[in-house]
Amino acid sequence: MKSNVAEKKGGQPLYEEVAGRLALMVREGTFRPGEKVPSIRAMSQRLKVSINTVKTAYGLLEDRRVIEARPQSGYYVCARLPAIPREPDVRRPLLNAAAVEAGEMVSRIMRDVNDPERVQFGAAIPDPAILPSEKLGRIMAAEVRRAKGHGTGYAMGSGLPKLRHQIARHMLKAGVTLAADEILITSGASEGVSLAMKVLCRPGDTVVTGAPVYFNFLQLFRELGLKVLEVPSSPVDGIHLDALERALSRNRVSACLQVTNFNNPLGVSLSEEKKKDLVALLARYQVPLVEDDINGDIAFDGRRPGVCKAYDKSGMVILCSSFSKTLAPGYRVGWMVSGRFRERMQRLKMVSSLATALPPQLAVAEFLANGGYEHHLRGLGRTCAQRVAAMGEMVGETFPEGTRVTRPWGGFTLWVEMPQAVDSMKLYAAVEPMGITVAPGALFSIGDTYQHYLRLNAAAFTPETRWALKAVGDAARELV
Amino acid sequence: MKSNVAEKKGGQPLYEEVAGRLALMVREGTFRPGEKVPSIRAMSQRLKVSINTVKTAYGLLEDRRVIEARPQSGYYVCARLPAIPREPDVRRPLLNAAAVEAGEMVSRIMRDVNDPERVQFGAAIPDPAILPSEKLGRIMAAEVRRAKGHGTGYAMGSGLPKLRHQIARHMLKAGVTLAADEILITSGASEGVSLAMKVLCRPGDTVVTGAPVYFNFLQLFRELGLKVLEVPSSPVDGIHLDALERALSRNRVSACLQVTNFNNPLGVSLSEEKKKDLVALLARYQVPLVEDDINGDIAFDGRRPGVCKAYDKSGMVILCSSFSKTLAPGYRVGWMVSGRFRERMQRLKMVSSLATALPPQLAVAEFLANGGYEHHLRGLGRTCAQRVAAMGEMVGETFPEGTRVTRPWGGFTLWVEMPQAVDSMKLYAAVEPMGITVAPGALFSIGDTYQHYLRLNAAAFTPETRWALKAVGDAARELV
Repeated sequence: MKSNVAEKKGGQPLYEEVAGRLALMVREGTFRPGEKVPSIRAMSQRLKVSINTVKTAYGLLEDRRVIEARPQSGYYVCARLPAIPREPDVRRPLLNAAAVEAGEMVSRIMRDVNDPERVQFGAAIPDPAILPSEKLGRIMAAEVRRAKGHGTGYAMGSGLPKLRHQIARHMLKAGVTLAADEILITSGASEGVSLAMKVLCRPGDTVVTGAPVYFNFLQLFRELGLKVLEVPSSPVDGIHLDALERALSRNRVSACLQVTNFNNPLGVSLSEEKKKDLVALLARYQVPLVEDDINGDIAFDGRRPGVCKAYDKSGMVILCSSFSKTLAPGYRVGWMVSGRFRERMQRLKMVSSLATALPPQLAVAEFLANGGYEHHLRGLGRTCAQRVAAMGEMVGETFPEGTRVTRPWGGFTLWVEMPQAVDSMKLYAAVEPMGITVAPGALFSIGDTYQHYLRLNAAAFTPETRWALKAVGDAARELV
Repeated sequence: MKSNVAEKKGGQPLYEEVAGRLALMVREGTFRPGEKVPSIRAMSQRLKVSINTVKTAYGLLEDRRVIEARPQSGYYVCARLPAIPREPDVRRPLLNAAAVEAGEMVSRIMRDVNDPERVQFGAAIPDPAILPSEKLGRIMAAEVRRAKGHGTGYAMGSGLPKLRHQIARHMLKAGVTLAADEILITSGASEGVSLAMKVLCRPGDTVVTGAPVYFNFLQLFRELGLKVLEVPSSPVDGIHLDALERALSRNRVSACLQVTNFNNPLGVSLSEEKKKDLVALLARYQVPLVEDDINGDIAFDGRRPGVCKAYDKSGMVILCSSFSKTLAPGYRVGWMVSGRFRERMQRLKMVSSLATALPPQLAVAEFLANGGYEHHLRGLGRTCAQRVAAMGEMVGETFPEGTRVTRPWGGFTLWVEMPQAVDSMKLYAAVEPMGITVAPGALFSIGDTYQHYLRLNAAAFTPETRWALKAVGDAARELV
């Protein structure tokens, strides 16, 4: 058995390889300065190489001052690492904006979310400071304790019943009566939308959506091999139904995906009349509607808009939402109601991820039941209203002349139209080294209509974001 | 706006529809006996129907004794519900075993997991009583508190770095050096396997796997439209490599999926030599291996077996695992390492569910770092060894003569071969009404080789499971 990997690989002696792998684990921080590493005997057993190979490898690492022996104790990572030449950080190479593909840029923008040092105008994430994080954490702890062993168990089938009941009650405010049994808990609204597109479409199919459109939807279409028809949408009244009808009459369309309330990125909600018309139009063409209502709970005036699902007579509307924007992005608690496609969604969910994590479901269910969700939403709506207004105003003051900006009634993103000359990919590259992430308009369409647009996350508005927004405006002026 | 839904639907008066929807919400328990329901005015605003429509609907519900008015207070669900004729419970109709499709039966078996009243021989779930549920819950609470606002945030990209470091350290014991950067956190091993199959295969493609095979993999293949080649596996030494080579030489195969350690359902591990040969054979045919190592940590003798990934020279092995069998099924914390396919896995993960829930990651990472995971595994392995042995013995005593049962060295499932005459689908149907769930062998193959086999979850062995196992044995005797 010892001989299994004890061969030369590509001419490199085995002890060099073992040393190299261990050095990498040290460099990455898997073993940290001052920490003990496995003994020679243990390492030999684990990697199934001889004691001598490990001895030689450890000797090399001692010479290179990666590890050091301590008498009667073993080997430790050197407290002060020598200047091992670092590999270039592949996660943030210097940026040639023009050469970066949309998918790669989307990945950067999403990854930047984890960097607390950056100003996050890029992703549409809520401000952690106004989320009830501690309360939710306390509730989760109490609920998991109360559930005892079952707190680690699976919530199979459709998800935690208590949570589904709470969602059904809550959604009465959106004018829709949902049976708890119709609701499937998902890992965020993302999983719901993704399951829906997978069930409704085959590779090569065509889907239709209003444009500009949330960039991760375009990435999803690309991964699934779907063609996309973009129907123009206005920041005033949303998707143009006559253009949609033309698209439907001329193409074989498998699904329509639309954010119906406080749309991302436009901020606009469809009027109730228009929601009804949209449902009727799609039903006439037998095209299912995937309705994303993720921002529906963040209404500035506290008036919860309705959902298309309320007008669905034929089970063709699939409604997806989540608590990622209102309670806790990282809890990944979303839900979907899929009308006549329900059985297939459940089956695909089961083979894709078996079930949704239970502790976050326990926490959100109890928060909805007794945590004051309504009260929290009123505060959230008011705060977002103030910040969106203030940031919109500041865009007017600091961006190049001729810049226009949306005035949404909910959510927390702004859609900014700059003068034609401002290439937002270049703007991204200009502010990126300052620790500022923005979302270039080009990402929101497969065409080139929005090259001079920008989506701004207005969830936080602090002295730091004010400074950063001014820096973006200054950079934009230089690009005119 | 009031007129939107205030139309007759299919001839039924609107007040009847409103009354019916509300009655359903009461029947399902969304509004419970004694609870207040929304006022007439609120309901009228929410559903956008007239006050009069709601008044008439509430009047009907009063007549039917679903709700009652209380003076100066509003309407409440009647404390004692009248005998509304219940719809048949679609989740558990009487069972005609022959008529039930495999997919439907798998759904039942998985759903039964949530029923604490049932004896769970069906799904391969660990016994909650020997999982460190309370400790994990405490750790999660502390970690979420410590993370403050960030505890609700996204863990974008590949998942929580601390968790990835801990996994890399832990997997040294399996003889493989993983860089933390290679590891992608997934929602259980299920999501890893599912992402892998989606990236590697297109609908219509052929995959190969050892048979018998974990039934959810067959469901996954079906959902993805894949054809499957089943290569015979033995409970003594696992998948037959010569048969695999024949299959590879005669077919265009997109991927091989295999549980390499304490295989589900056989319980067998591939020897290190065989792992190496399997990797080499597949590399020769340029077929990626999706390696599921979900049971690898549950070794009865405490000796952690290796993984195929350790012999992977070309980045063609995708290793998937999780903590669902050892720590907490419902936390949904799994991980994958995908070699040369890494970028595509990450992209697909991002569009499929954006990220994995953070609080469970925080808990598992800290448990691995300081919670005594190794100590826990030793106890878990010993306990499972005793229970698997005891249950295997009892199968020998109570099942029909000629029954054979595996003797695994890890995991907690038994694979039982009964006399040919015993149809395990009928056996399922015979014990189901007694509150006992078993997994019929027929589910573990697309062919009919295993009609008289059974997989038993041996994770728990109590007086109750002893009684239940005897009942299964008795029922099997009657079917001979």
